[in-house]
Amino acid sequence: MRHTLKDWLPIVQWGSRYDRSTLVADLTAAAIVTLLLIPQSLALALLAGMPAQTGLYASMLPIVVYALLGSSHQLATGPTALRSIMSASAVGAVVASTGADFLATSALLALMCGVIMLAMGLLRLGFVASFLSHPVLTGFISAAGLLIAASQLKYFLGIPIKAGNVPELLGSLQALPAGPHMPTALTGLAGLALLYASRRWLKSLLLSAGLGQGVADLLHKAAPLFILIGFIALSWAMDLGGRGVAVVGKVPSGLPSLSLPSWGDAPLQLVQALLVPTILISLVGFIESVSVSQSMAAKRRERIDPDAELRGLGAANIAAGLTGAFSVGGSFSRSVVSSDADARTPAFGIFTAAILAITALFFTPALFHLPQAVLAATIMVAVHSLLDFGSFARTWRYSRIDFIAMALTFVVTLMVDIVSGLATGAVVSIVLHLWRSSRPHIAEVGRVPGTEHYRNILRHEVHTMPGVMGLRVDESLYFANARYLEDHVSAQMASHPDVTDLVLQCTAVNDIDASALESLKTINARLRDAAVRLHLSEVKGPVMDRLKRSDLLDQLSGQVFLTHHQAMTAMEQARSDPAAAI
Amino acid sequence: MRHTLKDWLPIVQWGSRYDRSTLVADLTAAAIVTLLLIPQSLALALLAGMPAQTGLYASMLPIVVYALLGSSHQLATGPTALRSIMSASAVGAVVASTGADFLATSALLALMCGVIMLAMGLLRLGFVASFLSHPVLTGFISAAGLLIAASQLKYFLGIPIKAGNVPELLGSLQALPAGPHMPTALTGLAGLALLYASRRWLKSLLLSAGLGQGVADLLHKAAPLFILIGFIALSWAMDLGGRGVAVVGKVPSGLPSLSLPSWGDAPLQLVQALLVPTILISLVGFIESVSVSQSMAAKRRERIDPDAELRGLGAANIAAGLTGAFSVGGSFSRSVVSSDADARTPAFGIFTAAILAITALFFTPALFHLPQAVLAATIMVAVHSLLDFGSFARTWRYSRIDFIAMALTFVVTLMVDIVSGLATGAVVSIVLHLWRSSRPHIAEVGRVPGTEHYRNILRHEVHTMPGVMGLRVDESLYFANARYLEDHVSAQMASHPDVTDLVLQCTAVNDIDASALESLKTINARLRDAAVRLHLSEVKGPVMDRLKRSDLLDQLSGQVFLTHHQAMTAMEQARSDPAAAI
Repeated sequence: MRHTLKDWLPIVQWGSRYDRSTLVADLTAAAIVTLLLIPQSLALALLAGMPAQTGLYASMLPIVVYALLGSSHQLATGPTALRSIMSASAVGAVVASTGADFLATSALLALMCGVIMLAMGLLRLGFVASFLSHPVLTGFISAAGLLIAASQLKYFLGIPIKAGNVPELLGSLQALPAGPHMPTALTGLAGLALLYASRRWLKSLLLSAGLGQGVADLLHKAAPLFILIGFIALSWAMDLGGRGVAVVGKVPSGLPSLSLPSWGDAPLQLVQALLVPTILISLVGFIESVSVSQSMAAKRRERIDPDAELRGLGAANIAAGLTGAFSVGGSFSRSVVSSDADARTPAFGIFTAAILAITALFFTPALFHLPQAVLAATIMVAVHSLLDFGSFARTWRYSRIDFIAMALTFVVTLMVDIVSGLATGAVVSIVLHLWRSSRPHIAEVGRVPGTEHYRNILRHEVHTMPGVMGLRVDESLYFANARYLEDHVSAQMASHPDVTDLVLQCTAVNDIDASALESLKTINARLRDAAVRLHLSEVKGPVMDRLKRSDLLDQLSGQVFLTHHQAMTAMEQARSDPAAAI
Repeated sequence: MRHTLKDWLPIVQWGSRYDRSTLVADLTAAAIVTLLLIPQSLALALLAGMPAQTGLYASMLPIVVYALLGSSHQLATGPTALRSIMSASAVGAVVASTGADFLATSALLALMCGVIMLAMGLLRLGFVASFLSHPVLTGFISAAGLLIAASQLKYFLGIPIKAGNVPELLGSLQALPAGPHMPTALTGLAGLALLYASRRWLKSLLLSAGLGQGVADLLHKAAPLFILIGFIALSWAMDLGGRGVAVVGKVPSGLPSLSLPSWGDAPLQLVQALLVPTILISLVGFIESVSVSQSMAAKRRERIDPDAELRGLGAANIAAGLTGAFSVGGSFSRSVVSSDADARTPAFGIFTAAILAITALFFTPALFHLPQAVLAATIMVAVHSLLDFGSFARTWRYSRIDFIAMALTFVVTLMVDIVSGLATGAVVSIVLHLWRSSRPHIAEVGRVPGTEHYRNILRHEVHTMPGVMGLRVDESLYFANARYLEDHVSAQMASHPDVTDLVLQCTAVNDIDASALESLKTINARLRDAAVRLHLSEVKGPVMDRLKRSDLLDQLSGQVFLTHHQAMTAMEQARSDPAAAI
């Protein structure tokens, strides 16, 4: 595939037809997204274990960079809950074992994620993300959601609770010196109740109060910001900070500076320790972002280029690492908002970043009194969208094998940690896939009377011919099932000593790899030793092209027939007229 | 599956109908196999880095145990070249790093192989052996053959040459203090020439000299033993030992005693270090043995039970470990001989072991003067059957992907070591398989004029209907290609804005896993947002049964049709009569 500048730098494409109406639409969308982004970015910084201002940093340069390189027109990038908890978990483990600086390590992780995603994008390796199966991702994300909620308990209740996994949480709860800090817990609960109520009922309340759809919608979206402002005022008025409620405190104002994080004495060792988590975070972050942007694009019949997304997200993460922030991605909740608000081009991201920059420059002092418990409540409300327990029951009904992978991922994520859970899920789902396709469905077929159709003799009333066996293999033949086919044919021949002709119907065989080719040769040779001819029928075009490049067809003791019916007709003729050789 | 005593203890089955003619056949086969086994067992002991008598031990109790438990009637068990080199390589590495005793570690490896194979047999895990693809095995075995030959150079030339891998061999050759020890090299070359000539020409020579077929055959098979006896006589007469030619020396006579090997101070650490090589040796050994026994059985329309083979070989290896020998398996060359000699039941193995025991009791002093260079020549001649360079070219022609896996395995085995080579091959072939099936062939189909057949529009002259697109996916849908399908459908819809109905023809879809189900739901939802109906046609019975347990069919914006032609007919009717709803 040749690539043009348009593919590499999508801004060239949309920039050339940018007009005033697009500008208005993008500006409006940016304003609305920012209402959501300001509280989220502060809360997600805390979730990532980082100071509040880094949440703002993560929402500036990275968003601009993605706007220039990414292919989605509606994807709202910046901090996301899944990325933040994965970053916190990975960095926490590495810092504990190496004693590195938490902030610098988080920035390094973002930088490494960026480099890996960019490299994957340049090498067009977007497909590897598909090795994480959907049930594994669902099990993982549900478990991560629970861990995210648990990780906020310390802010929410004002007591030291560690919650990297369930055993740690239980141990931490048992070792607690006292109950929750009541003023903090009350603030948190109030915040949670208000945020939940505004999300659930505010819009219908406003509509029934007679407000227009547009205004009600805007107020509904701005509610989290107003609730935060309300709590800042309350906290200042009641001096909650003085009563022991943890507040955000002094947030340095100004824009982040571009700098390489300082990585201590053993940077290579640090990079090595971060490598596996980085790869997993990159994959999960990519899948999360690309799912969101594809959903948005499909509605408008636009197209996402997964490799361009990798490049865009990769560059955005490098920008995050260089501005002292943490790993960023595409946010589902904010993208829904930007799409609803009719964002038309990635330029809306640039405007979002500009508003954030103004906030960082002038409004950080206002954040001083914001209680951390309210930010924790913001995250807890958002976590709700990650939990999907219904899909456990659905998957159980649909496929036990997928359920095993899903449940294992869920349990290991909760009980051990996020990285082990995801790695376990990936390995288990690959092994289970190989196991499943290693014993394919093989049906003995017979003719449906009066037709030229051949169906499973166990499911249908069909005619068979003495001495001739027809087998249909319902799977591509490859190394994992090649030997099974050998065993199966041997067993069939051992239990049917009268058979002299075996016809393999290859309707469902989409591929025959070199191992399966060897097995077919072995089967052919063994059958010949036992005086049985091997025939093939209904071999697909591309498979046949390949077989012609091997010597199987020369060795074959029988023939290749275009249709299974032709094969059976030929057998019948040969039997009624033994003089005619098949 | 229920199992009877017959399945667990095959001797019950064949023992009950044992008669005099079977006894004669088995005794004859045993005598002939022994002629081959005595020189081989001594040589393979040296290959495994063990004293000569352990080769005899490996051919006694293990063979008896397999005869009682294994399911093959012709498989000749005992030491094999592949097992011996793998054992030598794995034990050598572990001994170098832990300082454990070589003999005890080799016995422990055999014991561990036995336990793993027995456990796999009891858990019916024989299928995991199929994860090693045929090209990977071929590449591995060819490389192992070269390493086996190289490892014999030190005996063959009488100079210290290390050959664990190619770099070591080259380094070792460069560092040599002097050229080959001439008397040793001459003895080795003479042995090699005689063994090769007898294998290649002796039989036809004897036949043309007027001997009967049976006598010529027997003499041909006994030739290696006679050559060995000749060299013992020559060595004694010319006092080769005194001229610096290494001879076997004093071989302790008597039977091995049953005992647990002593594993030094840190047995657990030793077990841990041996674990990965043990698993790989067990798998390769199992594949080697089961391929041989299946070939033998198929000729007679008998059946091999892979799980019974695992139990039999597992118990045999445990017996090897407990009698101070090394890992054993099924030998291809000796099994061909036993099958030719009409071995009828596993009892021939018991007789073989009995003859070996007599040798060990009374004839070991005769081995004193046997030059090691001649044993090395025995192995070099046998290695010939392991090398298969023709298959590199065949695989290259047939499938580039399989060739990559094969070449990588070959190179890593030669350049690093046997265990790394095999592990690399296994991982690479799984990743390449996933990659290959992650981008399935998807064809847009149209109707072949005058028929009800629908074929690829790029390959055939077909009719399509405006506004309706038919896509045929030539692969089972599962996690590795689910996202690709989403991308592909999005791209098709973006480039065909006039399409209002998409029909997925599912002829070749043998399975839809939970990830693919999610993708179909996503595709359905996205298409609905873009006002396109999604239909399915020709969904297979088992796949449809599963889909009925999901909610896809309720959500589907279109319909499910039995055949693709019915789908297209319905679309046409709906178009000509817009009042009729599809």
